[in-house]
Amino acid sequence: MPLWTIYHPPGAYTPQQKQQFSADITGFYTRYGNLPAFYVVTVFQEIDADSFYIGGEPSAASVRIKADHIAVHTDDPDTRVRTRQILARILAPHTTDRGLYCEFHIDETPRDLWVLDGMAPPPLKSEAHQLWVQENRPVPY
Amino acid sequence: MPLWTIYHPPGAYTPQQKQQFSADITGFYTRYGNLPAFYVVTVFQEIDADSFYIGGEPSAASVRIKADHIAVHTDDPDTRVRTRQILARILAPHTTDRGLYCEFHIDETPRDLWVLDGMAPPPLKSEAHQLWVQENRPVPY
Amino acid sequence: MPLWTIYHPPGAYTPQQKQQFSADITGFYTRYGNLPAFYVVTVFQEIDADSFYIGGEPSAASVRIKADHIAVHTDDPDTRVRTRQILARILAPHTTDRGLYCEFHIDETPRDLWVLDGMAPPPLKSEAHQLWVQENRPVPY
Repeated sequence: MPLWTIYHPPGAYTPQQKQQFSADITGFYTRYGNLPAFYVVTVFQEIDADSFYIGGEPSAASVRIKADHIAVHTDDPDTRVRTRQILARILAPHTTDRGLYCEFHIDETPRDLWVLDGMAPPPLKSEAHQLWVQENRPVPY
Repeated sequence: MPLWTIYHPPGAYTPQQKQQFSADITGFYTRYGNLPAFYVVTVFQEIDADSFYIGGEPSAASVRIKADHIAVHTDDPDTRVRTRQILARILAPHTTDRGLYCEFHIDETPRDLWVLDGMAPPPLKSEAHQLWVQENRPVPY
Repeated sequence: MPLWTIYHPPGAYTPQQKQQFSADITGFYTRYGNLPAFYVVTVFQEIDADSFYIGGEPSAASVRIKADHIAVHTDDPDTRVRTRQILARILAPHTTDRGLYCEFHIDETPRDLWVLDGMAPPPLKSEAHQLWVQENRPVPY
């Protein structure tokens, strides 16, 4: 469900670091949301400093992240605060702790306009959802 | 109106296949929505497996699509189900039928914050809209 | 807050032109919104004509822009019209005046799921907000 797009400077991450980064993001959704791991897609895009501007100035040491939340939305203000705080902690070792300025924001998009391998995802808490979690792939249901 | 962003593995599509893919997407909006063809923009982006992670694992055979719907929104649940089902059928020959895992989701963004060639688009069902459909370009109105 | 993603033909802009383009966008938010300049992130992405389709046809002379508004949303219809009109005027010298077809749309995403350098942004009109404007960086508050 969540689609994470990560704009970063060329060479900021090795493939191993990108995999760990995406694994840490995935862990948030599997641990707190009981979502199937394969719902979490992370796309890294290198952006040269002369194509990456912050306040009109080129930036060679910034990471800008946009995530779409599709599977789960919440109106509860406390949960929303916790979501951004936990994600900030997960991102820190990959960004600010390494001297990379980091900004991220999350959008929430409609669950009923979402398709995986030709199927709409099963309802949360359904047996089929639990099967997708266990199998870690979309199973016809 | 719709902006389609398609993340795909390097070499997954020839230019001819990309054009057919985008033409098939365009056909959905012109046929079912009576929208001008030029409203439909499709951007393909190659993502290397070491920048494309699903559930924390690199993926070399997946297509991840995000579309923004701007011109037309509907609250009708049946129309929403049909939208995702028809689009899934349109995408299949370009993705799952070729052995490429495919996930897509659609966001809906405000129509009144949308500009083409310096102009706000004419209201649906207006004469100007019909002119834009026929001319397939933004005509001052 | 606003994240601008600009898809453009290869070679359409020199680094100097991209910097001016991003500075003009930034000026809109600092002047009309009293936002800190560093809230405005602009990412340019070159898209080859064979990956950039409008109405199913490859396009080599088009700029497609998507912006996310996070910090400030308004329901006032007049303000929304003015927003799109002023932005269209700011974009014109970089696009349509140069013979590049230009389409842009803006999404509005939740302010409470937004983090800069590990911090949620201070409320608009707060002293901390004014400090962020003056310092042009995220200051602990």
